[in-house]
This record gives sequence, C-alpha cells and structure tokens, in this order.
Amino acid sequence: MLALTPSELALFAQGQQPNLSPAELARLQGGSEAEWDSMAKCNFNENPYGPPESALKAMSHAYKFANRYGYPDDNIQQAIADHHGVKRDHVIMGAGSGELLNVVGLTYLTTNDTKVVGSDPSYGSVYQQATSIRAEAIKIPLLPDYRQDIPAIISATKKHYREVGFVYLCNPNNPTGRIVTKREIRQLLDGIPEDVPVLIDEAYHHFVDDSDYGTSVPYVMEGRPVIVTRTFSKISGLAGMRLGYAITTPAIALKMREHQTGTINALVQWAGAAALRDTASQEQVKKATLELRKKAVADVKAMGYESLPSETNFFMVHIKRPVQPVIDAFKAKKVLVGRPFPPMLQHLRVSVGNPDEMVRFTAAFKEIFVNGAVGGSRGG
Amino acid sequence: MLALTPSELALFAQGQQPNLSPAELARLQGGSEAEWDSMAKCNFNENPYGPPESALKAMSHAYKFANRYGYPDDNIQQAIADHHGVKRDHVIMGAGSGELLNVVGLTYLTTNDTKVVGSDPSYGSVYQQATSIRAEAIKIPLLPDYRQDIPAIISATKKHYREVGFVYLCNPNNPTGRIVTKREIRQLLDGIPEDVPVLIDEAYHHFVDDSDYGTSVPYVMEGRPVIVTRTFSKISGLAGMRLGYAITTPAIALKMREHQTGTINALVQWAGAAALRDTASQEQVKKATLELRKKAVADVKAMGYESLPSETNFFMVHIKRPVQPVIDAFKAKKVLVGRPFPPMLQHLRVSVGNPDEMVRFTAAFKEIFVNGAVGGSRGG
Repeated sequence: MLALTPSELALFAQGQQPNLSPAELARLQGGSEAEWDSMAKCNFNENPYGPPESALKAMSHAYKFANRYGYPDDNIQQAIADHHGVKRDHVIMGAGSGELLNVVGLTYLTTNDTKVVGSDPSYGSVYQQATSIRAEAIKIPLLPDYRQDIPAIISATKKHYREVGFVYLCNPNNPTGRIVTKREIRQLLDGIPEDVPVLIDEAYHHFVDDSDYGTSVPYVMEGRPVIVTRTFSKISGLAGMRLGYAITTPAIALKMREHQTGTINALVQWAGAAALRDTASQEQVKKATLELRKKAVADVKAMGYESLPSETNFFMVHIKRPVQPVIDAFKAKKVLVGRPFPPMLQHLRVSVGNPDEMVRFTAAFKEIFVNGAVGGSRGG
Repeated sequence: MLALTPSELALFAQGQQPNLSPAELARLQGGSEAEWDSMAKCNFNENPYGPPESALKAMSHAYKFANRYGYPDDNIQQAIADHHGVKRDHVIMGAGSGELLNVVGLTYLTTNDTKVVGSDPSYGSVYQQATSIRAEAIKIPLLPDYRQDIPAIISATKKHYREVGFVYLCNPNNPTGRIVTKREIRQLLDGIPEDVPVLIDEAYHHFVDDSDYGTSVPYVMEGRPVIVTRTFSKISGLAGMRLGYAITTPAIALKMREHQTGTINALVQWAGAAALRDTASQEQVKKATLELRKKAVADVKAMGYESLPSETNFFMVHIKRPVQPVIDAFKAKKVLVGRPFPPMLQHLRVSVGNPDEMVRFTAAFKEIFVNGAVGGSRGG
C-alpha cells in the first residue's frame, strides 16, 4: 500500500524522517493536511490531548529563546535528576527517548558480530537499527500468553555472552501492552553476566496500574549497567517536540554521549520542565486514557473479540484474521490504526485516542467485524 | 571564570548541553533569567531579531502537531531540495547544522588514526569532536592576513592522505569572518586526491556580499565527495529551534544517516519551510546586520582599533591586548562578547546584535579602551 519498508515505517513512527517523497509522506501522514485533520488517530500511541496547558504556557514563554544558543533552560536536567533522586551526571537527555535507544545501539553494537538480545515483537526500532549498522538481533519469541520470556532471554544472553552488546527490554512492552514484573526484572539482572548492559525502555511507565510492575531506576543506583529510558512524548503529549531522557551510570552516560548527535530545542526544555511538575495533568491523561481503553476493550469483547491485558495507552485485539486488510478497511473509514507487528499478524494494535476518536473506532470496528465490511475498502 | 573546558563551551555555543551544574549554566547563560534579559548579546553569532513573523505564524499553526509523530510537515525536505535544484536524496536534515558536522565526524573519523584537516582558528566543534572520539585534527594556521591557507591544506591532505578522514572548511570562516574565494575552493578540490570528502560549512552564507565568494553546492552536483552544510539558525533566527541541513551525494547522505541520532521537532519543520520562502525577511536581516556591522567597525576604528574584513554577522577587532580581561570587562558592563579563539588571543569577536545592543557595545568599548576601564571589572 505504501512504498515503505517496515524499517522506514518504524523510523517514521518514532519521529524520524525516512527518505520519502512528499506523496509517500502525505499518505503516511493521512493525506493532505485536511485529510490528516479528518482522521481518527489510533495508530502511533500518541497522547491525543496534546501538551498540557502548563507546557503550552512554558513554550510561549520560551519563544524568546527561539533564536538563541545560550539561554536559561528552566534547569530541566536538574529537575529530572531531582525527580528520580539521582545526580545530574546520571541523566542524559535526548530528542525523544528514541534518540537514546539509537545511541545505545551505536554505543554497544560496534562490530559486525555484536548482538542485541530482546523479545519479538517488541519496539522494533532497536532491532532495525542493529541491522542497519550490520550488527545482529537475537529475537526471543513471546510466551503463548504474549508475556516476555525472561528465562529464554537469560539463556540466549549467556549462550552468546561474548557477542552480546546489550539486552533490550520494553516495559510495558510495545505492541502488546504487557508488563514485565518487578520479580522478573530482578531475575533477569541477576541471571545474566553482571557486565552486560540492559536497556529498559519505560516509555509507557505512566500508564501502568499493576502493582507487580516497578521502574528499574533503582538498579542504576546499585551501580548495575542498566539504562532506563523515559519520554515526554506519551504522558506529556510532546512527541512532536522531541524530549526524552535516560537514567544510567555516569560512566555509561559519558560513553553514550560520544555517539549522540541530536540536540534539544529551547521550547521543549521549558515544556518538559513544566510537564514534569504538572502531576495533575499526568493523572488526568492517565485516568481518561485508561477509562477509554477499558470501554473500548469491553466494546470489542461484546462483539466477540478478546484483547490482551494492557497496562499502556494502547491495546491489542485478537482479530482472528489477517490484519493488513483490516487496517485498510479502518483507513477507508477514516480511522488510522496500528501497523502490522509480525509475527502477530492476526492482532490489531489500537492506540487510545480521545473520546470522539474512540467512538469512531468502535463504530468502524462494528461495521468491519459485525457487518462484514472488510474487502469493501476503496481507500488508500 | 567558568568551570568549563573550551570544548564544553563550544558544545554549549552550538546548542548542545555539556554536563553543567545549574549554577554554571546560569553563569554561562548570563545569570538568572532577569540577568539574561538584561544583557546585550554579542557573543554567539545569533540573529537578534528572532524568527520572522512568517516563521512564528507557521510555528503557531504547527502547535497542533506538538503531540504527534506522524503529521504533515509542509514538505520541508522537498522545499530545501527545490531551493538548491537538487533531488530529495541529496538532502540530509539535522537538528542544526552542528548535528551534521558531528555526523560527518562520526562517519569519517572511525579509527584512532583518522584525521581531519582544516584551518586554525575555525569553528572548533569539528576538531573538538575529533579529539573526543580519539581521532586527530591537523590544524593549519591562518595566513598573516587571517585568510585560510589553501595550499597548506592541500599539502597536509596529500601528505597524510591515507589517514585523512575529511577536510573541513568553514566559509566564510568563524571566528574571522573572512571568505575562501570561488577560485580557492576549486583549487582545493582539484588539488587533493579526488576521493577525500570535503565538508564545507556555509553557516554564514546569507551574509556574504563579496562576489568572489560562491556556494559549493555545484560541486556536489558534479558528483564530488563534497558535503555543504547550511543552517536556519543565523539568517532565519531559529538557533534555539534546531534546524539545519547538508547537501551532498546520495551515497554520502546514506552513510551519514547511520550515524545520526537526532530528530527535528514539528514546529521547526514548519518554521523552516516558511523562513525559506520568506526572502524579504532574509534581505531585511542581512541589510540591518551589515549596516550595523559597518557602523560598529567604523566606530572602533575611530577609536584606533582595526577589524578584519568580515562577510558575516560578526567581526573581529584587533584589540592589541589580551582578550580575556576585555571579555570580563564587557560582561561587567552587561555586554556579552565572544569567547577567546586561540591563538588569536588579542582579537575580540563581536556578534552583531540589534541597534540597541550595538549602541551598548560601542559605549562599553569606548569606556574600556578609551577611558581605560579594563581591570575595573567586578562582575563575574
């Protein structure tokens, strides 16, 4: 449908521009701006509400720095350090956490033999980058219940110890929405050789309710080679403004910095600092998102379709048929849904939009699955 | 005065955050926000007018993409390609041209023996990065008239041919403001082995009046391994928003992309497209800047101090005494001026501010140099 490789699509979904024609980009972005405006956007795990009022105000204030290199930055890096109770040299900022995932790849996958070990499917950008720099990804299939297979990750890491650059864990996992428990994280970190770096991507941290989940930041404080990434893209609605960070040891942060080429714009430094303080808006986004997710999951269940238990701002429906025609059928109804995530090609990833978008999603789902509209797509 | 290495200071001046304490950052940035506001900013070669109205409008429009990954981007990459009459795959976008300078370093300085060849002083970030990744910089002194020594660059490149990763040329040069002529560029490119990449940094392109100067983009079209970088930071006043690009061969662009980790925010994509179309504002900025530069150069000349002929938005005054105490004296008078550029330690780099800032600069210059206020600095 699109002249895009999965790797290009993933780059795009992460805010990086693959080398596309304007026509390709326009189709990917939902067509012209008017078409884009008209779409229900349940495809990229974005926060549909946009940045909170506090962040918008901070950005307006920071407009006066738009032409500057040196300016007050509202002490964003110190604010992040304080938030986690760590020192500033444990924090490395990035243009989205996606930049930091790439930086970890460039830091630890330095030769053709180095390997990243992680689950499949997971957030694919790490594996695609590994391939693009001629390293290798050892992908461990999910368990039958779509949880991550920690013992298998441990075994693979030990088996390939000499070539393993790092272990990647997305928690909660994208695209499944399932968590790795606190107990499993400890099992992993205690089970692999202690010098193997572990990258733990907590992009969806703020949406988790399950008390079996916990952040892995404390392991950094123990001095383990753990890199925890966070983003302002999700809970704070700043994906297009590009701000994320990693918490890691000062030694790893220094090493990573050599490979980092991005810089952060003036507006998002102020927006991020404001959003970090605005816990009320974080709570609101979480509450609205979880309520809408629960309702949508119940709605599709009432139509006979089960979803995986999710702890994020998206969920996966087992649609019991190939996903690509369904994605196309949704698009024809002006609802954008997630791309295919092989090998889970009979599951549909749905990002939780705003209330109006979720009404449109559920209505389209009903038309496609109950009224049998698949194949009726004439859209592009 | 500041607990900063020159390399950290250069990083900072390029919009990258070295790992500073808030107090250090605040001092570097001119103190608290109120102090920063109160300073005349003639230190970072910024455009004092800010983004043009057209770009501000475009950014306001693009606020609706602040929470998105996928969105219409006003076809910025295609607009840049069209502007230069090249294809889209000749364009690589970056978070400021500084990102692309770093990317070239990471692409071509891959082993401990690789070297970059270029003038000294020039924009130091390229050499500092080379050192930080354990490569080496072969720095060719400027000629007695502070022009770049092209024959010496050719000789050094040929002599170290096997280890040269690339040649760096800033044109016009920072910090001197002097151009390399069209004829000299051809002499360089024809004089070195044809497979040596040449990075030509045209950050100050838009301020040049001298007809002996010309852009090096046509050499890319000849298929030579030339990388021309441009930025929206200067003429378009978008330094804090982070947008630049390189024009190069598709093969080099692909190679560079593997080392690029930054991404560009939604607002600056729209701002850049608007600024590119806004040739009227570019003309206004150029006209105002050159008039103010000429006046300031005449004013200090009237006080007995010669400046180097500049084709940029800054100029260098030969102050005939050590520069650091003079920088401190200016700061005490609430005028920020350029950092020291060794070995030119009796030259002061002055960025052209707005009319008010230039009045303050000239008044401070008079107090320091005519009324002898150096040493009277009690500021920090």
